[in-house]
Amino acid sequence: MRTQVVIIGGGPSGLLLGQLLHRKGIEAVVLERKTRDYVLGRIRAGVLETGLVRLMEEAGVADRLHREGYVHDGTQIAWDGGMFHIDFKQLTGTPVVVYGQTEVTRDLYDAREAAGAQTIFQVDDVVIHDADGDRPHVTYTRAGQSHRIDCDFIAGCDGFHGISRQTIPLDVRREYEKTYPFGWLGILSETPPVHDELIYASSDRGFALCSMRNANLSRYYIQCALSDHTSDWTDAAFWDELRRRLPADVAERLVTGPSIEKSIAPLRSFVTEPMRWGRLFLCGDAAHIVPPTGAKGLNTAASDVQYLYHGLVQHYHDRDSEGLDRYSEKALLRVWKAERFSWWFSGLLHRYPDQSPFDLKMQKADIAFLRDNESQQRAFAENYVGLPY
Amino acid sequence: MRTQVVIIGGGPSGLLLGQLLHRKGIEAVVLERKTRDYVLGRIRAGVLETGLVRLMEEAGVADRLHREGYVHDGTQIAWDGGMFHIDFKQLTGTPVVVYGQTEVTRDLYDAREAAGAQTIFQVDDVVIHDADGDRPHVTYTRAGQSHRIDCDFIAGCDGFHGISRQTIPLDVRREYEKTYPFGWLGILSETPPVHDELIYASSDRGFALCSMRNANLSRYYIQCALSDHTSDWTDAAFWDELRRRLPADVAERLVTGPSIEKSIAPLRSFVTEPMRWGRLFLCGDAAHIVPPTGAKGLNTAASDVQYLYHGLVQHYHDRDSEGLDRYSEKALLRVWKAERFSWWFSGLLHRYPDQSPFDLKMQKADIAFLRDNESQQRAFAENYVGLPY
Repeated sequence: MRTQVVIIGGGPSGLLLGQLLHRKGIEAVVLERKTRDYVLGRIRAGVLETGLVRLMEEAGVADRLHREGYVHDGTQIAWDGGMFHIDFKQLTGTPVVVYGQTEVTRDLYDAREAAGAQTIFQVDDVVIHDADGDRPHVTYTRAGQSHRIDCDFIAGCDGFHGISRQTIPLDVRREYEKTYPFGWLGILSETPPVHDELIYASSDRGFALCSMRNANLSRYYIQCALSDHTSDWTDAAFWDELRRRLPADVAERLVTGPSIEKSIAPLRSFVTEPMRWGRLFLCGDAAHIVPPTGAKGLNTAASDVQYLYHGLVQHYHDRDSEGLDRYSEKALLRVWKAERFSWWFSGLLHRYPDQSPFDLKMQKADIAFLRDNESQQRAFAENYVGLPY
Repeated sequence: MRTQVVIIGGGPSGLLLGQLLHRKGIEAVVLERKTRDYVLGRIRAGVLETGLVRLMEEAGVADRLHREGYVHDGTQIAWDGGMFHIDFKQLTGTPVVVYGQTEVTRDLYDAREAAGAQTIFQVDDVVIHDADGDRPHVTYTRAGQSHRIDCDFIAGCDGFHGISRQTIPLDVRREYEKTYPFGWLGILSETPPVHDELIYASSDRGFALCSMRNANLSRYYIQCALSDHTSDWTDAAFWDELRRRLPADVAERLVTGPSIEKSIAPLRSFVTEPMRWGRLFLCGDAAHIVPPTGAKGLNTAASDVQYLYHGLVQHYHDRDSEGLDRYSEKALLRVWKAERFSWWFSGLLHRYPDQSPFDLKMQKADIAFLRDNESQQRAFAENYVGLPY
């Protein structure tokens, strides 16, 4: 088989790229290790920057997002028994949209199928060949059969554990990493959200986040020990601990119920450089991970997709390689900004085991400065709604 | 002897407080352990916030400052081979004034002497008595004679190593401290400054600062190991190392000459709470220390002086204790903001021995964000020129 672009990974980055290319007449095949239902079963955050919303519009898949997504003009920071508001709309002119990553993925699959574009599920043993040469191709097996796709370019959208990054030789790759000494215990429950905006809470007992999917589906998180297991936490224990980390008046309003999902995620900052090797381009989690504080994961993947999409269009339509040649540089410039914000925002709100009393005072002073200083709020809001591409 | 306020310490904080009180008809005696010449021999930074300039005006000692001080509308940050400007004037409407702390102190001594206000030099064995009672007094010896001054209030302006803070019982005091794993090696040289604004430089070899006293007196600093001694550093070695930490075009313009002073200072963040104990009020270094990055030491002392001055005027003129009762709370609120800024700005520019490659990337991303984001620049500028009292 031959195509123009092989996209490895049928998550939101790969699908978004595929859909954008399709609308420009560029053919792509998506290879996905799992099934569509498996991919749609993954629960992820869902705060979309305006840049991602614009890309969804450009991909022609934003109708349901606009119909069902929740426009949030700001967010709440809870701290020291109180809560303050950061007004994105007023500070930057731009809101964010709360719309689950699962829904983004579903819309992209529906559009991909409607367009008749090819997605091959349940592929195994994917190998990228000759990415640094002129005749790149990808081999894989499916249902015991070996297959080969020849292509012009390969987009590695297969996540942190995927094979795309590993294909880049170690003497070319430079990796940067930070692991955090805690995790997030998250639950999903069919209860109305405690607030109509997200609440990021910093307390002496640790971080908590009140998020939501819709009017009757809430997502809550609390900072937990890395050694914790979900079996250590009954629903009752979770709700009790969450309440203790929220301002009293918020805790009182909290509606609890049985969890329909419960999981613990570690927090990691990770970046690989470069993001391009020959004809292989890494996008999203394949190249970088952020801690979830500030919801930059999907949004930063979208920013990569945007650079790669424009680079490919420039290549195929204008015979100009500038966009592809500068892909890694441009993408990384924005990646590092998102990494910085996610790292800083995580540091602002979590308890760290090695914090000295002075460190804690600095953390409090940082939150107080954010509460009291409009310039700091604006810098925060600009990051949260998404820095320009 | 009896007076209204005993001021312990004849440095700039004590003198400024004394002068402000004098102009409101409140009598104060200043006790100083050293001689006037000794105090004036201490070399300190000299970047004055507008708030301090206003206080100097209110104290009637701002004429020479306005005549000889250098108004700086911004500062330079050197990094990654280049340099960018932060325009305080444009971002905040306010500049800073470069005028040596020694000159501030000299002007205050001259005014104090002209006013006939009492300063007692070379006092030893200063002890504060009954600060938490109704009849506070201070005893000291001078030239072998014991003395006692009864008073209403005591202002502890005697610095980090002074006796005022130590007078507050340990079960009342809470101290917060951070020491930094490096020092600043500074020299003074009779050479024209390399730039008409300060240059704060971050390089792979460590931090450097190009500052000045006047058109032919420059002050330069480089980050050094805590184990270094000034005798390890010849003038030539200092200049060589400084050049390596500056952008090439700046290094080329650097005019060098013999050092007329050379010293190494450790960096420390320190705060004691509360800043009031009964009738004893701590001001400046007696209560808090900042690392010198950002020049907040004298300015934060001035902010304390301002709160205490207004509290005392309120007490004596209006018979209202609100200002004194809330002194510690108000002063600390601003102290922690200055601590935060000095700690953050130090962290932004220095090399730390335990920085991981990821940490270094975050530091670079922080500097890049400051360079590229106007809101971040404005927040920086607002801190640098001084947050409101």
